[in-house]
Amino acid sequence: MKKRVLTTVAFICIVAFFSNTIIAQTDPSEVMEDFKPSAVNQPGKEYPQVNSEGRVRVRIEAPEANSVQLDIGAVKYDLVKDEKGVWTGESAPQDEGFHYYQLNIDGASVPDPGSLFFYGASRWGSGIEIPAKDGDIYAMKNVAHGKVQQILFPSPSTNTSRRAFVYTPPGYHKDQSKRYPVLYLQHGWGEDETAWSNQGRANLIMDNLIAEGNTKPFLIVMTYGMTNEIKFGGLRDFDIKPFQTVLLDELIPYVDSHFRTLSNQPNRAMAGLSMGGMETRTITLANPDVFSHVALLSGGSISLEDLENHPDFKEKVKLIFISYGSRELENPRRGPWGDPVENTEALTEAGMHTHFYVSPETGHEWQSWRRSLHELAPLLFKD
Amino acid sequence: MKKRVLTTVAFICIVAFFSNTIIAQTDPSEVMEDFKPSAVNQPGKEYPQVNSEGRVRVRIEAPEANSVQLDIGAVKYDLVKDEKGVWTGESAPQDEGFHYYQLNIDGASVPDPGSLFFYGASRWGSGIEIPAKDGDIYAMKNVAHGKVQQILFPSPSTNTSRRAFVYTPPGYHKDQSKRYPVLYLQHGWGEDETAWSNQGRANLIMDNLIAEGNTKPFLIVMTYGMTNEIKFGGLRDFDIKPFQTVLLDELIPYVDSHFRTLSNQPNRAMAGLSMGGMETRTITLANPDVFSHVALLSGGSISLEDLENHPDFKEKVKLIFISYGSRELENPRRGPWGDPVENTEALTEAGMHTHFYVSPETGHEWQSWRRSLHELAPLLFKD
Repeated sequence: MKKRVLTTVAFICIVAFFSNTIIAQTDPSEVMEDFKPSAVNQPGKEYPQVNSEGRVRVRIEAPEANSVQLDIGAVKYDLVKDEKGVWTGESAPQDEGFHYYQLNIDGASVPDPGSLFFYGASRWGSGIEIPAKDGDIYAMKNVAHGKVQQILFPSPSTNTSRRAFVYTPPGYHKDQSKRYPVLYLQHGWGEDETAWSNQGRANLIMDNLIAEGNTKPFLIVMTYGMTNEIKFGGLRDFDIKPFQTVLLDELIPYVDSHFRTLSNQPNRAMAGLSMGGMETRTITLANPDVFSHVALLSGGSISLEDLENHPDFKEKVKLIFISYGSRELENPRRGPWGDPVENTEALTEAGMHTHFYVSPETGHEWQSWRRSLHELAPLLFKD
Repeated sequence: MKKRVLTTVAFICIVAFFSNTIIAQTDPSEVMEDFKPSAVNQPGKEYPQVNSEGRVRVRIEAPEANSVQLDIGAVKYDLVKDEKGVWTGESAPQDEGFHYYQLNIDGASVPDPGSLFFYGASRWGSGIEIPAKDGDIYAMKNVAHGKVQQILFPSPSTNTSRRAFVYTPPGYHKDQSKRYPVLYLQHGWGEDETAWSNQGRANLIMDNLIAEGNTKPFLIVMTYGMTNEIKFGGLRDFDIKPFQTVLLDELIPYVDSHFRTLSNQPNRAMAGLSMGGMETRTITLANPDVFSHVALLSGGSISLEDLENHPDFKEKVKLIFISYGSRELENPRRGPWGDPVENTEALTEAGMHTHFYVSPETGHEWQSWRRSLHELAPLLFKD
């Protein structure tokens, strides 16, 4: 069992931490000249830009540099310098949605000063937004907006105050007698508690679903999954216990005492992406008295063998949600728990309520996870 | 009057947007070798570092670069490359507290990928924390912590949902019948609504003051002051009205309907730093029915002539708080409204309740404003 966990950790880390070895240069004659500033640029910044093909164009002034590259999607693209010392270049078309990227100036890997910064790959770095056909689901619209609150909760087990963010839905402030279910939602390896609001736009996805009447309102709690201690070569030390202690013994009681929650198993869900999916899997299998709804986004699946080893889980858990980006399934990834489609079908046959979702034409990326949250929320906390 | 406003705007902009022309290199024999990672580094990053003299040491790998500089406090320091292509260098000693800085790699101005990023000088860029003798006032301690909430409030006048952050004190969730006073707190030019929490640590200053019993608990609301439209050469178009409309007609009603506030003049304060002080000055002089407590941090003062022009202000405002960093007063800055010390003394003689605070050995910097908030909070909303 321990070996399996380690294999999956290694696998997820490798997928997330792809090697950057391909170098390319885009042929200008192939590029559609309809670039617009990215939606996640810093205020007033014209670059980076995106065109209708999903190509990313960056520009930076570096008059004395010998070489500048755009590093995105595991490929490095050489930029070209003009007579004023300004470097410009484009990537190949990227999938819809959010992507991390960086610049490389004479061998220095740095954020692009034109973009907003996001925490991923264990650093604050640049991000780009490729407009998506279904971008409406996470757009900021003229609807009632919930709040995202930063809390600092006491954590005796780690001897510090730890940070989490709590989404409260529109109307939370109104009826002081109303209580809400809670989804605990985890980020992936190399990310932190800011990811689901910043890259994931979880609050806007919820605001929009609630405005349409397509989900019950509930709270979302996002904290740091302590996953970034997991490094190449250090996997043998990986242990779910420190995070499980923070989550179960410290964060949940804090949230239940500081927010108007429905503080019981039927009204508590856990979900996570990638490494956060693995954490969700391990913690919910071992604690079916705590969580009733379980969602793994690009983060493994649950097998019949798991059910046999955890009979309470089968009895008490109301929903198992498994999702992937379609590109993740193109090269079938038989993780240590077997094929996620076959596993989920077997759970359904065994009588569990399951939901399998595939995000079209996306990979191990935030667009898959935004869509997964949009698909998941309406299924949670049904009577 | 309009000309005076413009002069002050220009003055504040020039102070904030100093020219970077000095180039220096630190003599290694002068440097104390007791550097430690800065408190606002990205997780796990060893650099930048700070020593006991307040020098900043940066390090970055840029094997093919010709020149790398550290740009801090209006001075550029040349770094030195080792045989592995890693550049290292130090600044002169800096004042205590928080400072913005950046790196320059072969002519490209970029954030240092080792530091956390802060919005200032109209960009997300690097920041460094020089440990201060009184750093205790904004340290994260084992006390009850309030929350910082992101709200998105409807703004018909700008046709969008605008963002603000709201600090609610510890205990806010407990007694649902208790209502709180509110301080509206503005950032400076080139900054935004994130500044008072990130650079200013306003929430921790309040948590600590409340834990010590040294201030009444109150809410703090921080939104974007729309100051960044003010650029060199564009001052003639500066107009307080768009922001005043957002603040008075949109944000305050939203806060009063979504939080348990004491929604009347005696329980509403406004404060701002630098450009935000100028906004506070203009808005509160014109609206003494809205705000009872007024604080200008490195942002001008109020003169006898102002009182004569605004008789209601003299009658209705309970406190005028004026503060500066001591270095700002070393080169006497007779702003368009006269000397702040003389002005404030004249208001006191005229019978107003004033408070003048000088932050020791700091300039037009966040350490002055953190200390000012710490000095101001206990004076607010006294019976």
